[in-house]
Order: sequence, then C-alpha cells, then structure tokens
Amino acid sequence: MLDTAVHAELAAILPAASLLTAVEDVKPYECDGLTVYRALPAAVVLPETEAQVVAILKTCHAAKVPVVARGAGTSLSGGALPDPNGIVLSLARFKRILAVDALARTAVVQPGVRNLAISEAVAPLGLYYAPDPSSQIACSIGGNVAENAGGVHCLKYGLTVHNVLRVRGVLITGEVVEFGGDAPDSAGYDLLALSIGSEGLLAVITEVTVRLLPKPQVAQVALAAFDAVETAGAAVGAIIAAGIIPAGLEMMDQPATRAVEEFVHADYPLDAAAVLLVETDGTTDEVAAEMAEIRQVLTAAGATSIRVSRDEAQRLLFWSGRKAAFPAVGRISPDYYCMDGTIPRKALPRVLQAIAQWSVEYGLACANVFHAGDGNLHPLILFDANKPGEIERTIAFGDRILELCIEVGGTVTGEHGVGVEKLSPMCRQFGAAELTRFHAIKEAFDELRLLNPGKAVPTLHRCAELGRMHVHHGELRFPDLPRF
Amino acid sequence: MLDTAVHAELAAILPAASLLTAVEDVKPYECDGLTVYRALPAAVVLPETEAQVVAILKTCHAAKVPVVARGAGTSLSGGALPDPNGIVLSLARFKRILAVDALARTAVVQPGVRNLAISEAVAPLGLYYAPDPSSQIACSIGGNVAENAGGVHCLKYGLTVHNVLRVRGVLITGEVVEFGGDAPDSAGYDLLALSIGSEGLLAVITEVTVRLLPKPQVAQVALAAFDAVETAGAAVGAIIAAGIIPAGLEMMDQPATRAVEEFVHADYPLDAAAVLLVETDGTTDEVAAEMAEIRQVLTAAGATSIRVSRDEAQRLLFWSGRKAAFPAVGRISPDYYCMDGTIPRKALPRVLQAIAQWSVEYGLACANVFHAGDGNLHPLILFDANKPGEIERTIAFGDRILELCIEVGGTVTGEHGVGVEKLSPMCRQFGAAELTRFHAIKEAFDELRLLNPGKAVPTLHRCAELGRMHVHHGELRFPDLPRF
Repeated sequence: MLDTAVHAELAAILPAASLLTAVEDVKPYECDGLTVYRALPAAVVLPETEAQVVAILKTCHAAKVPVVARGAGTSLSGGALPDPNGIVLSLARFKRILAVDALARTAVVQPGVRNLAISEAVAPLGLYYAPDPSSQIACSIGGNVAENAGGVHCLKYGLTVHNVLRVRGVLITGEVVEFGGDAPDSAGYDLLALSIGSEGLLAVITEVTVRLLPKPQVAQVALAAFDAVETAGAAVGAIIAAGIIPAGLEMMDQPATRAVEEFVHADYPLDAAAVLLVETDGTTDEVAAEMAEIRQVLTAAGATSIRVSRDEAQRLLFWSGRKAAFPAVGRISPDYYCMDGTIPRKALPRVLQAIAQWSVEYGLACANVFHAGDGNLHPLILFDANKPGEIERTIAFGDRILELCIEVGGTVTGEHGVGVEKLSPMCRQFGAAELTRFHAIKEAFDELRLLNPGKAVPTLHRCAELGRMHVHHGELRFPDLPRF
Repeated sequence: MLDTAVHAELAAILPAASLLTAVEDVKPYECDGLTVYRALPAAVVLPETEAQVVAILKTCHAAKVPVVARGAGTSLSGGALPDPNGIVLSLARFKRILAVDALARTAVVQPGVRNLAISEAVAPLGLYYAPDPSSQIACSIGGNVAENAGGVHCLKYGLTVHNVLRVRGVLITGEVVEFGGDAPDSAGYDLLALSIGSEGLLAVITEVTVRLLPKPQVAQVALAAFDAVETAGAAVGAIIAAGIIPAGLEMMDQPATRAVEEFVHADYPLDAAAVLLVETDGTTDEVAAEMAEIRQVLTAAGATSIRVSRDEAQRLLFWSGRKAAFPAVGRISPDYYCMDGTIPRKALPRVLQAIAQWSVEYGLACANVFHAGDGNLHPLILFDANKPGEIERTIAFGDRILELCIEVGGTVTGEHGVGVEKLSPMCRQFGAAELTRFHAIKEAFDELRLLNPGKAVPTLHRCAELGRMHVHHGELRFPDLPRF
C-alpha cells in the first residue's frame, strides 16, 4: 500500500491513467521472465517525459519508497521483480527513436524502444544495431543496457557495453546525469561502463545513444554435426585458435536439436550428439575465404557432416532452430530452468562432460544450447514442478553447474544478469574486498538503496550466513563486515 | 621528508637498493612526459613482489602517506607526477610475462612489461596485442591500463579497455582485488572498466590479463594528399560513412608533414595541405577489396594524389613519418604543447578551420597530427618558452581548442588522460552530479585519498572558484558542495 501523501504527490505528477494501484492493474507487473519469483508492487507508474521521471524519483527519494525500473519485463534473472513496498517505474512509453546520424553511425533512442525496432528503423540506411538477444523482438534497449545483454553475434560484435556510446539517466535524487558521449573515450572514471549492466541499481535510464554498424553484404552459416559433445566443444576452441572470429558460433546438443526439430523443422541432423552453427559475414570474397577455412578446421576437428547454407532462406532456416530452442524445450517438458554461466572456451569439453554425468546422477534431462564461441552456457534443466523433489534436484543440479563455472575460471552470469536469481552464487564468485566496493559504489549513487533494492549484489551478511564467503586473498575478518 | 617511523617500516619491507630517498636518486622521478610540472617525492620504492606492494600500501595507509604509482613515466598529462609529501611506487621491476594461452588468446603480464614487449613475445604464435600508443617501445602495460591508452589502430581494434580482460591490483588498504576474468562478461558492476583509465586513483595494478589478436596476413596503407585540411577532414567522414572501418586512419597537416620530411624522409607530398594515412589489414583478398573501396572514396572526396604502399618496407616508411611526428616537431620548435581532445568525426572540418584561424590570431604555429578516424586530435602548438608571453598565449590557444571540443559534443581527453593537466577543462566537461559521483567512487576505494592525490578529477571547490562549473541540468546549489 502506497502512503497517502506519496500517492497524492504521484497523482499530481501523472495523469490518472499513468498511475496504477488496483490489484488487477498492477498484477501484470508482478514478475518478469523469471516467473518463479512474484510480488505485487504498491503502484505502477508510466511516465512519458524525463521531467516526470525526475519528479517521481524526487518524491520516492524524499519518502524513502523503493523504485524498480522496468523495460519490457523479459529479464530471466528477476531484474524487474517488484518490491512489495515500492513502485514499478515502467519505461514502456519511452519508445521514440530521437535521432539517427548516418555519418556518425549512431542512434539516440528512448529506453523503451525494442532492440529489433532500432535495426528495423535504420535498415534503409544499410545499418543495424549488433547485439541481438534471443528476445530481441520484445526486449527494450533500456533493459539491454541494465543487463548488458548479449546475443548470438556478440563473439564478433561485443556485448551491449561495446555498442553503447552514451547513457542519460536520472539518479534517485532526481539529478539528471549523462555518462559517455559521442567520442570514443570519455574523461574521468568510466561511468558509462559502470552503468551498463548495473541492473537498475544506479540510475533510471531515459536515453541511450547506440553505435550502429554497416550491414554485412553477405552472411553464410555452416551446420556441422559431431558424434560427441566433447568433440564439438573442442572444435569451438580449434576455430578460435585458427584465428577465425565467426559472426556467430553456437552449439546445441542432441536433446536440444531433437526438441527443436519437432517444433520448427530446421533440418538439423538428428543422429548427431551435437551440432555447431558457425556463421561468417562480410563481403562475398571475405565470406567465401573464411567459410573455406571454417570447413577445413571443422573437418580436422572431427565433424561428421558439414552443410553450408546455400542461400539466405536456408541460412535463416538453420538459425530458426537455434532461436526457437527455449520455446521448443518448453514444449517437451512441463518446466525447465535456464541456466546462464560463462566459462573459458578451453573448459568446454570438461564442463559438458560434467553436465552429462550430473544429468544421470540427478535423474533430470538437460538440453544444452549456448553461445559456444564466447563460452556462454545455457543449460536447460528439464523438470516437472509437480513431481515431489524435482525442483530441489533441479536447483542442486544448477548450483553445481554454476560452481563449476567459477572453478574453471568463469563467471556465474553470461548475459542474463544476477537479479534475484544468482545472489548466492555471487558470494562464491567474489571476495569481501570486491563485494564491499560493489556496495560502496551503490552508496555513491543511491545512499538509501531505493533503486531496485535486493538485486544484483548479495549483502555480505547473506554471504556470511551462507557460509559461502569466498575468501579471495588472505584472511577474512568478520567483525569488520558492514551489514548492508 | 619521510617520517622516520615510515622510513623504518619501508626499510623493513624492502632491500636498501629498493628504497630511494637521496635527492640525486629520486630526481629522475620528478616528472613524467609532461615536463612542465615537477616535484620531488619524499621517497621512491621499487618493490618486486605483490606481497611487498601490499606491505608498502598498508604502511602508507596507516601513516596517511600519499602514493603515486609509476610505470614507464611516459604520461603526457602528469599522471605520474610525484606528491612532494608522498612516495613514488615504481612498478619497473614487475616486468615478467607470466603466462601466454594461445588457445584462449590471452597473456598474463606484470604491469611493468612494455607494450611492445607483449607483441614481441607472442609473435612466434602469430599473435599480437592491438593497442599501440606511439610510445609503445617505452610505455608499460600498467600505465596503459591506468590511462586507457589508445594508438593508431584503436579505431578498428579499440582502446585498452577493449583489450584487457582482467586486472589484479592492491587497494590502498592492502586488500588484493581482481576485476574482470577470463570470461567476456563479469557479474556485478563493471569494476574492470572502472579501473581502466582511473589514472592510479583506485588501486595499484600488479597483474594484467590482455586479449591477444591473430596477426593479420597483410596490411597496406594508402597515403592520400589533399589541398585543404577541411577536405581531408570531410574525407575521413566519407570513409566511415561508406561502411569501411580502416585498421588506421590518421591525418597530418602541412606543418606536420614538413617537419616530418626533414626528419625521417617518409616520402610525404610536401605540397599537400594535409595527408591521410588509411590502412587496411586482413587476408590478401580482403585487403585488395577494401583498398579498392578506399581509393574510390578518397578520389570522390577530392584527394589530389593517392599512393598505396607496394610492399611492407614502403608501408613502414609511410608510417614512420606519423610515428615520428612529435619528435620531428620538437626539432623545429624550441617548445611545443601537445593537446589531446576528441570530437565527433563530423565536426572535423569545423574544428580544423577554427584551429587554423586561432593559429593566426595567437601568432603561434600549430601542427596537426591526429587519429582522424576516431576524432582524436593532437594539435601541437609551437612556442618558445623564452619569448615573453608565448607560454600564456599557448595555454590560452590550447584552452580554446579544448573548449571547442566540448562545444561540438566531444571530450577533453583522447588517450592521454586528465592527470594534472586537464583538471580545469574537466570542470567544463562535467556537471556537479557527475563530479560528485566521481569523488564518491574514489572514496569507495580510497577514503583518505592517498592514491595519486590531486589527479584526474577536479575538486568541486576548484571548479566553483574557476567559475566554470558547468551546470548541466537545472540549478546548482552551492552550499551543498562538499569541499574535497
């Protein structure tokens, strides 16, 4: 329940239709793509101007009301999960593309603009926006910035942080800030990179300047089959070691390809233990030369068959399977849990072997779909929430995967963020020194911890209670730990 | 003078030869590449192990002694200028390459390793480290990280921040921290990006993991002449607009080419008002295709002559002029002041015109040498410090250039950092909201402000006194300003 005075202040800022408090109105905002966590917010506000955002944040700051900013709500880690005592600030009405500069190859967009809408808008100029998360039809650029989203092409073209030049936003105090600029470098600390992937904890984004890229003339994808996942994993390393940086380098194992084939008929080889999709783009000559090299490496790495897309239709068909992998798995299992961790490429065979072994051990099928080129795993653990014990076994299984990610030198996130989902693994990933600085940075921007509270960074107290505080270097002195 | 107790503690940590206090011993450390500022430190320490760095920092922290970390001392903005009450912590003895992983294409190096030494060490593997500041023979990777160094190839391959995967360092408290990792993404706030370019204010770097790239098969450079600097500036925009991302895209005007020709005989056309160097690299086919396109665009943009390097020797000859531009100008003028600012490419003609006009107005010659592709200007203002008034006119001239950089949407740094040189322009670049967060971040890492004090971020007090506080958005309330 919103305090009456706060409600009155918000009602003075916003038209009635932009301030929702009735349960049936706020219900659609109770969760994001991670549906296992739900909470009703006290209110939902839908501002349309930056001045309204400023006024809303000043009101919430003065009254100490938590604020959760929300884009399209496609987060898979609970990044947009409401705080029951706070408001959800939806950026859904910030959906204008403000400027496109073909010479500088940049676009200035509002945060509610959908990822794909940017590329569609600049297509007539021969340009596009490179990061392409699987949810790109729906997800918004503001959410992409908050989560530092990736996609199948980020091996070559980078994550969101590599494709955003400037972020404009509002601090919880109501101060308007701009990080980055039109120039490649920016003076002072890199607040642009700091804000990208900060999961809505530092500022509410009101404007984003993205870098656009010239659309490659041609793209071609090779679909290679392997008779063991470990061999496919090793082939990934071989491609990179050969000096090739494919536009996309994706891997799917047999459980994933089988689910996909039944769903979208992408013409995948069903007898293969794993397939790789290796894409190259550029000019016709470049693509021909690189594809020849890719064929050679794949063959030497033990591919049992290689098919190269003969035209754009077949290229899109091959990709359709990968892009539909999550819903395809959703069709064959009552529930699935999508993991997201990243490992060094050389650890791929080892981690894949361990996942296969644990799948037997826990009695749970697991479909592997992932951005192999950059080591970003998305194991999908299949379970049935109605069968006693399956949720617990799923979580234990997932936990071991993330632990292994850390053990081999990787990280517990790839492109989905930490949200509420991975707070505990963060205790294993980071030491007290790093976690303390994370909290100090939060405090530098939001002393009262009102923006997206309880997300992204675990409290030291939680880590200590879990007994999982990962003591990085030297001793850990408990009495010193602040209790955030 | 170092406090006796502190001296005794440092002497217990280090062998006698690694703790310098005599004036003749500390004198070589009194300045870096920006020689106009000089100060003798109380002591210079030369640790060899991370444990020694930890112990030194703990000692200085406890005794509140300022610490200035120093790499090769090639900073052009005074980043390594000593604090007269503090110590200089030289990383000169941290010069080992600890590991090279050809599959992951990474190298783990100590901060004192020279930039070029990395590429030399991994050359047998067909790899190299991309960022190549002109000082790459001398400058160290630790300094590169501190300043987020660039180079002639950063248009295509990025700045230091795009080529470093992990930084290990020691906080002033003695805590050892690691930012980033082997995986492309990292959970939590992006402390890796935050630490890169932080000019030694947050931590002392003890280890850096760099990304290595496969050496391109071939590279070729076009040397194009133009009869006006503005035309050359517009040609830069045309190349980028055509969808070409050259490996290097450099511009020099006539004063620069004339100075260079006399010095290294790089075979530049002396009648041209400006020349562009446009490099393409990749496979033989790629290079041939891209060079044909570059020729076309340059011709259409009004190049009066275009010569393409016919072999590696000629390519290196063409580059030798650019790489020797600073010393070449040093030969023809008693003094010169090297500016460093970045502007959006589309503003190139306008800014070049203004510089030419001011050159007449201030009666000071100016040679323009710069990374045109990414809009990073290096105007070299020629002056004679012995002529009364010339220093003042030089500074006024330089000031106007930086002001114009901000006005056209650029920034007051490119790749040289802020150091002590550009504290005042920072007041114009940033508003109180951003500056306040800069200081809060510093406090999160170094509450007593002992690491490299007085560099990189101006105090709000200084900005207020200059009367140059740039009020970004809305009012500025003076009584609120903390006095850092």
